[in-house]
Amino acid sequence: MSVAATLFETHRPLLDRAVAAIEARGYWSAFPEAPSGRIYGETAKDDGLAGYRARLGQPFALDLPGTRGWTGQERSPYGFDLGIAYPDCDLGALLAAAVKAMPGWAAAGPEARAGVAVEIVKRLNARSFEIAYASMFTSGQPFLMAFQAAGPHAQDRALEAIAYAWREMARIPSQVRWEKPQSKGGPLAIEKGFRIVPAGVGVVIGCATFPAWNGYPGLFASLVTGNAVVVKPHPQAILPLAITVEVAREVLRESGFDPNLVTLLADTAERPRTVELVERPEVALVDFTGGPAFGDWLERNLPHAKVFTEKAGVNLAILHSTDDPKGMVRNLATSLCLYSGQMCTTPQNLLVPADGIRTPDGVMPVTAFVAVLDEAIRALTADPAGAVELLGAIQSDATLARLEGFADDPRVLIPSRPITHPRHPDARVRTPLLLGATADDPLAGRELFGPVAVLVATDGIDAAVGLAHDLTRRAGAITWVAHSTDDAVAERITDAAAAAGASLAVNLTGPVLVNQSAAYSDYHVNGANPAGNASLTDTAFVAARFRVAQTRRPA
Amino acid sequence: MSVAATLFETHRPLLDRAVAAIEARGYWSAFPEAPSGRIYGETAKDDGLAGYRARLGQPFALDLPGTRGWTGQERSPYGFDLGIAYPDCDLGALLAAAVKAMPGWAAAGPEARAGVAVEIVKRLNARSFEIAYASMFTSGQPFLMAFQAAGPHAQDRALEAIAYAWREMARIPSQVRWEKPQSKGGPLAIEKGFRIVPAGVGVVIGCATFPAWNGYPGLFASLVTGNAVVVKPHPQAILPLAITVEVAREVLRESGFDPNLVTLLADTAERPRTVELVERPEVALVDFTGGPAFGDWLERNLPHAKVFTEKAGVNLAILHSTDDPKGMVRNLATSLCLYSGQMCTTPQNLLVPADGIRTPDGVMPVTAFVAVLDEAIRALTADPAGAVELLGAIQSDATLARLEGFADDPRVLIPSRPITHPRHPDARVRTPLLLGATADDPLAGRELFGPVAVLVATDGIDAAVGLAHDLTRRAGAITWVAHSTDDAVAERITDAAAAAGASLAVNLTGPVLVNQSAAYSDYHVNGANPAGNASLTDTAFVAARFRVAQTRRPA
Repeated sequence: MSVAATLFETHRPLLDRAVAAIEARGYWSAFPEAPSGRIYGETAKDDGLAGYRARLGQPFALDLPGTRGWTGQERSPYGFDLGIAYPDCDLGALLAAAVKAMPGWAAAGPEARAGVAVEIVKRLNARSFEIAYASMFTSGQPFLMAFQAAGPHAQDRALEAIAYAWREMARIPSQVRWEKPQSKGGPLAIEKGFRIVPAGVGVVIGCATFPAWNGYPGLFASLVTGNAVVVKPHPQAILPLAITVEVAREVLRESGFDPNLVTLLADTAERPRTVELVERPEVALVDFTGGPAFGDWLERNLPHAKVFTEKAGVNLAILHSTDDPKGMVRNLATSLCLYSGQMCTTPQNLLVPADGIRTPDGVMPVTAFVAVLDEAIRALTADPAGAVELLGAIQSDATLARLEGFADDPRVLIPSRPITHPRHPDARVRTPLLLGATADDPLAGRELFGPVAVLVATDGIDAAVGLAHDLTRRAGAITWVAHSTDDAVAERITDAAAAAGASLAVNLTGPVLVNQSAAYSDYHVNGANPAGNASLTDTAFVAARFRVAQTRRPA
Repeated sequence: MSVAATLFETHRPLLDRAVAAIEARGYWSAFPEAPSGRIYGETAKDDGLAGYRARLGQPFALDLPGTRGWTGQERSPYGFDLGIAYPDCDLGALLAAAVKAMPGWAAAGPEARAGVAVEIVKRLNARSFEIAYASMFTSGQPFLMAFQAAGPHAQDRALEAIAYAWREMARIPSQVRWEKPQSKGGPLAIEKGFRIVPAGVGVVIGCATFPAWNGYPGLFASLVTGNAVVVKPHPQAILPLAITVEVAREVLRESGFDPNLVTLLADTAERPRTVELVERPEVALVDFTGGPAFGDWLERNLPHAKVFTEKAGVNLAILHSTDDPKGMVRNLATSLCLYSGQMCTTPQNLLVPADGIRTPDGVMPVTAFVAVLDEAIRALTADPAGAVELLGAIQSDATLARLEGFADDPRVLIPSRPITHPRHPDARVRTPLLLGATADDPLAGRELFGPVAVLVATDGIDAAVGLAHDLTRRAGAITWVAHSTDDAVAERITDAAAAAGASLAVNLTGPVLVNQSAAYSDYHVNGANPAGNASLTDTAFVAARFRVAQTRRPA
C-alpha cells in the first residue's frame, strides 16, 4: 500500500467525523484548543518557543525552485525585527515547478490527496506552539489567541475545508455503466469514466492579522482538489505560513509527491509581488484575505482565475433593549478590546436609538451607555499584565496612525490609552477609542480597522435597522450583534441581517463574543455583500476548484 | 397546507429519484422521449401544433410589468416570418418587479420552491408538443430533435438542476443547538439559525439553436434557490422561452407567489438589450449560451454578477484505428449531419494521421476515408424526406453565409449540397461540407459553427493528440470523439482530453453519437477550457446561487 493510501486509511475516521460535523453544524473540534502541557506534551510550549527563536535572524531554507536570493523584512508589533530571510524566487521557475507537480497529484485521486492533506494538518497541530509564537510576534496577537487562532482553530478550518472538498469529490463515481432501454432489442450500454481534474495553480494571499486561520481554508481546499498552491504571505506575517509550507512540503515529499505542490512566494512591502503572481496565466484560483481596495481589484481584474475574497467592512452593533445591561456592556467591551479590534468580526459602528436603550431599570440614555462602556473597558484593561493578554499589540503602522489621528478629534467619546507591556516595552498597546458620529457622517460609512469604534445615535430603532442594512449593502459587513428583548424588533433585525448578508448574533451577554467564528458550524463571511464574495466554508468555496473529465465508450 | 407544500409532497418522490440519479449517474429519465400519442395523449401532437399555430401573427400577452409596447422579429429557418409580437418592457420596471417578488419566494423555503419548480417542469412536459413546434420553427431543428431537445430532454435537464440545488439546500440545517463543553460548569450553548438567501436577480441568455435545453438549467437553478429570473431569449428563438415563461408564471400565480419571479425580456437583432440588462446592479447571476466573443465579454465585464457560460469551440475527432471502419464512418457522418452540425457538441476538426487509419483490412488512406465519408453522408441524405428529418434547416444567416463562402474554396474535399424540403420549399437545408487543412491553417483553430468540418492530416497519432490538446486549451472544445483499437493510444488520448477539459467518447460505431449528452449522467461542458466556464450540471453550477444567513443567540 502506498504511503498516501495508508494515510487515507489512518485518517479516514477523522475525515468522516469532520464531514458529519459540517452536516450537523453543532459543536465539534478535532484539535484541543487549550495550550496545555497535558495535551501537547510537557515540553511542547518551551520547544515551540525555542523553535520560533531559532528562526530569528536566520535564513529560512525551503529548497524552493527558482531561488535567486533572499527577501523578507518582518518587524514585530511587539517592537523588534525578526531578521528572517526567506527565499526570493523567480516566478517563472516557481510556477513551472508547480505546474509540473500537478499531474501526479491529480492522478493519485481524492483518497490519496485527502490522506496527505489531513496528515499535513496533523503535523501542523504538533507544531502548534512554534506556529503560535510565530503568529503572535508577527500579528501582534496575545499568546492565547495566537495559539488558538493559528493552531487548533486554523487546523479545524483546514480540516473543515478538506472535509467539504472530500465530500464533493467522493460523490462523483469514477466508473458507471449507463444502460438505456430500447423499444427493440437489448439496451444501449455505455461505460462512462469520471476523473477529477484540478483547475490549475492556486494562490493564497495571506493577511497580517490571522495568516493561518484565514489562509488555511483556501490552501487546503485547492490542494486536496488536485491543484498546486503558491502561498503568498503578507510581508509582515511570513513566518507562520513559511512554517506551514515547510510542513506541507515535508509531508508531500515523504508521501512520494512533488513538494513543489506547495511553495512560498515571500516579498516585502517595498517590493510587493502579488500582482505579478496572480496575473500569470498558470494561476486558476486565488484566495485573498485583506483590505477592500485590493480585494475589489482582484475580483475585477483576473478573468482567468476564480477569486475568493474576504475583505471585511463596517461591522455593526444595534443596541435596542436588554434584560442584562451589565452583561451586554461587558460583552461589547470585550469584543472591542479583543486583539485591539483587529479582527474582521469586531463591531465598529454601535447604533443606538437616540432616546436610549431600554433596560429593566428603565431607559439607559446614550450618555450613560458611553459611561458604562468606558468603565467596562477600563475594568478589562486596568491591570497591564492582563490587559496585554486581551489587547495584544497594534499590528500595522497604518492602524496605529489612524488611531492616533483621532486623538484630538472633537468627536471622541472614549479616548484611547497606551499601556506599557510588562515584557515588551516597545510593543504598541492601546485601548479602544470611541467616536460619536451622526448617521450621515462619512466616518460611519467606512472601515476603520483596529481599535476605533463609532457610536451613532439614530432616530429610533427602525432607523438603526435601516442604516445597518444600507451600510452593509454599501460598505459590507461580516457581523452584526444586536440586543433586543422585543421579539418583533429582533425579528426585523434578523430579516435585515439576512437581506444584507451579515452574520447576526443576538443578546450576547456571556463569554461568547460576536467576534468568534467556530469551524464546522459558523459560516465566516456570507459572500452576499461587499465584505467578501466567498464563505469559509461552504460548498461553493470548494466546488469550482476542480472539474470532472468524462469518457464514454460502448460497453 | 399551502399549495406549494402540497406540490412538494406530491413531487418529493420524483425529486428524490432525480437526486439518486445524479449520484448514480446511470441512465434515468423522468420524461418519456418518444413523441407518442400513447404516452402524451392521442390528440397531443395535433393540439400542440394547433397551439403553436395559434401563436403566429399574434401578440403574445404575458402581463409583464413595465410593458410599453411590442417587439420581436422572428423568421423561421423553414422560410417564413412568425409574426409574433412580444411585450417590450421598461427594464427598470421589470427589474423592480423582480426584486419585489423575491422576499416572499425566499421566505417560503427550499421545499416550497422545489415543489413549485418541479410543478413548472411537469406542466412544461404537458406542453411538449407545442414547445416542440415552437422550437423546431425557430431553431430549424427537425421535428423529432425539437420534441426531445426542447421537450423531455430539456425538462430532464431542468429537473437535474433542481435536484442539484435541492440537494445543496437540503444539506443545510435550519436550526442547530451548538454546545461547547467547558472545563468548569455546564456547556456554552448557542441556538443557531441558518436561512437560505437568494443571490439576486438571475438572467438567462438563451441561444437560437437549443433555447430550452440550454436555458432551463440556469433558469431552474436560479429560481429554486430563491432568485427571480429574467429570461432574455435569442431574438430569433423567443417563442419556446416565451411559452416557458408563461407556464412558469401561471404555476407561480396558482401557488400564491408573485409571477414576476419569472419574466421575459424580448428584443430584436437590430435593437439588442442584453448588455443593458446584465449591466444592471440588480443582476447577480447570468447564464449564457452562445458565441465565444460575447461569452468572453460577459465573463470579464460583470464583476457584480456570477457568470456561467457555454460558448462552444473547436470540437475534435481523432481517428487512429478501428475494428469497424463502416460503423465508425457511419457514426461520424451522422454526427456531422445531425441538425446540420449546429450542435455545440458536433465534431468540427477531424484529425487523421497522414499515413492513414488502421483497420482490420489494412490501412485506410486519408483519401479513401474522405471517399467513404462522402458516401456515408450521401447515403444518409439521399432521400429528401428522410434527409430533412436529420439535417433540419440552417438556423442563421451567418451560418449559411459561412457555408456558402467556402463553396469555391480550393480546400473543399466534400462539397455541401442543397436539399429541397418536401413541405417547406423555402427552408434552407444543406448537407455538410468538408475542407482539408494543414495543422497550422488558421481554419483549424477557429470555430466554424454549422455544417463545416475540417480534415487535418497530422504527422502521426502523437501529433494529432498534441494538436487536439493545444487547440482545446486555446480555442476551447466541448467534445472529442476518438477511434483507436490500441489501448495505449486510447489512454494517451484520454489523458490529453482530461488535461484539456474536453468530454471524450471513444470508438462510437453504433447509434450513440458524441453529440448527445444525457441528463443526470453526462457533464455537458467541463468548465476547464475556453468552451465555457461552467458545467451542466454539477455542484459548482448551483452552489453559488444562494447564500446562508446565520443567526446566533444564547440558548
